[in-house]
Amino acid sequence: MEAAGLRGVAEERQSQVDAVLARFFSLAKKRAEPLGREYVELWNELEANTVGGKRFRPRMVFAAYQALGGEDAAAAAYVGAAFELLHTALILHDDVIDHDFVRRGAPNISGSYRDRARAAGASEADAEHRGMSAAVIAGDLALFNAYRLIDRSGVDDATRERLLEVMDDALFASAAGELIDVDFSWMPAVPPVDDILAMERLKTAVYSFECPLQAGAILAGASEQTVETLGDFGREIGIAYQIVDDLLGVFGTEADTGKTTIGDLREGKRTVLIAYASSVEGWSEHAGRFGNPALCDEDAELLRAHLVDCGAKAFAEGLARYYANRAMARLREPHVAATLRAELHPVAQDVLGRVK
Amino acid sequence: MEAAGLRGVAEERQSQVDAVLARFFSLAKKRAEPLGREYVELWNELEANTVGGKRFRPRMVFAAYQALGGEDAAAAAYVGAAFELLHTALILHDDVIDHDFVRRGAPNISGSYRDRARAAGASEADAEHRGMSAAVIAGDLALFNAYRLIDRSGVDDATRERLLEVMDDALFASAAGELIDVDFSWMPAVPPVDDILAMERLKTAVYSFECPLQAGAILAGASEQTVETLGDFGREIGIAYQIVDDLLGVFGTEADTGKTTIGDLREGKRTVLIAYASSVEGWSEHAGRFGNPALCDEDAELLRAHLVDCGAKAFAEGLARYYANRAMARLREPHVAATLRAELHPVAQDVLGRVK
Repeated sequence: MEAAGLRGVAEERQSQVDAVLARFFSLAKKRAEPLGREYVELWNELEANTVGGKRFRPRMVFAAYQALGGEDAAAAAYVGAAFELLHTALILHDDVIDHDFVRRGAPNISGSYRDRARAAGASEADAEHRGMSAAVIAGDLALFNAYRLIDRSGVDDATRERLLEVMDDALFASAAGELIDVDFSWMPAVPPVDDILAMERLKTAVYSFECPLQAGAILAGASEQTVETLGDFGREIGIAYQIVDDLLGVFGTEADTGKTTIGDLREGKRTVLIAYASSVEGWSEHAGRFGNPALCDEDAELLRAHLVDCGAKAFAEGLARYYANRAMARLREPHVAATLRAELHPVAQDVLGRVK
Repeated sequence: MEAAGLRGVAEERQSQVDAVLARFFSLAKKRAEPLGREYVELWNELEANTVGGKRFRPRMVFAAYQALGGEDAAAAAYVGAAFELLHTALILHDDVIDHDFVRRGAPNISGSYRDRARAAGASEADAEHRGMSAAVIAGDLALFNAYRLIDRSGVDDATRERLLEVMDDALFASAAGELIDVDFSWMPAVPPVDDILAMERLKTAVYSFECPLQAGAILAGASEQTVETLGDFGREIGIAYQIVDDLLGVFGTEADTGKTTIGDLREGKRTVLIAYASSVEGWSEHAGRFGNPALCDEDAELLRAHLVDCGAKAFAEGLARYYANRAMARLREPHVAATLRAELHPVAQDVLGRVK
């Protein structure tokens, strides 16, 4: 009964966010019409790249907002939608930087524009360039409009200013993380665990957990102390989430992750797993496989086995549990409202539940 | 005397905009410090790419604002700085799309990050990728903060909302123009003159002329009619400016333009000149030279001579004059304040003056 009730709440929240996004895209497409069919099509693609996700960031906004007594679901839906659009922008530009044409098993904007240019007879280089260009432009539109949606949430001036600061924090951190990630990708040595965690936190966790939770609390008029605690909780659980994500990227199934589980190994993604493994004797035998774009299934299986044998998998799982536990400990602090604890405990449990 | 007075006004306006930007970047760099030296360096690069320009867009904001009686120069400086930052963002991402590593004769962000990666021993492909990635990230920061600067101008809510709408219009148009430009670049046929003008207007003129002029007028509390007339003036003069820019890109000197005058011919830039030339018999003899990345100086000279002989140069010059004259005619409309006419007439004259 309770689970069904929770699902009902989650669905209702999601449908409110979806309604904000549907309205936003419908207006944008109408506005794009006089500027040409191609531009309407870009907005269609941007919409398709936005509405396909799990509404994870809006869920964080709502969780904090409603647990803290917020009752203006429409305002929360705008703020949630703003973070969703920020997420789309960051993903699109991250894919441009990583030269990725696929996201969650389907072509992203770069991919679908590339494929259409190919079909129209463009050379491979021209087609890829066409795809990347469309993704740069679409990302700019999403980024700018993330801000606009906060502006349209209808909140008072002081709240709006604080929400904008939080979104500013989100982009500021993510840009720093992206820059560090680019640096990592062409450094020969694997960076130490701490550096990887710091990068992942900046690049993804700040804008996915810390900022949406804080935005929800600010919107609900919560105390500074509560806003700060939510930042702390968001940081810990966000790091845990990233570690689990890296684990699933190697050991998960496609059904879990919606993406191939050989990709991270082929592209040589620097994760906590690899940072650990590279510090253990014997890595040099496996280092040649890691980051090999032509890595075959058999060699991937050997790599996975080594990551288990050398203790990297257990280490990463332990670290994820540690951060998730730290997050839950934050919720037990006496000043945290019982409603907030009840709302966020399942979030942390979900993350832990993903560690097999 | 009068000219000296005008120069004094222009210098004072520019120094106010510079002060806003200096403060903005100083705060951003301080905020970036805990996130690492590399991030501070990215902000330094972004600042260098912003302060090197001619403050053209802030000049438009101030021209409209002060001619219409606006007296809060600080607010105008924020709005002007916001448009300057928008310009930086669009230029950075345009250079990513065009794969350009140089702007105004100096390395842009892509270029300086590429050069440093090269010097550190990266392969050419890795170094270029490093450069492009930094430029994507820096452009995102500039774009987002263009919005923030409008927000910080300290104006009342209704004015702020209208200013944000104008900046939204600017990005909305520019994204559409960029998309069309990308399409042009890989279409085999040269598009007709009208399509090229429409693209150039959307991509550059709207955010460089129409929107900054309108923002200045809105800030000054001008009537709807005046805001509309400024949009009309900005459209006409903006198109004229683009045509002159395309002329200078082929027939100018490096001293005029700060860039090589062979670049547009080598990259096959579709301009009004080429649209005209390609419609005249005899183009097929020259078409092979146009867009040839290895075009030599002698062949470029032959192309230039053909663009003169076939009438393309005279046609483009005539068209630029036509649009500049139309812009000036707008200023003669009876409802236009004499102060506004006096301020903007020299802007149109400057554009005409660039047509040799």
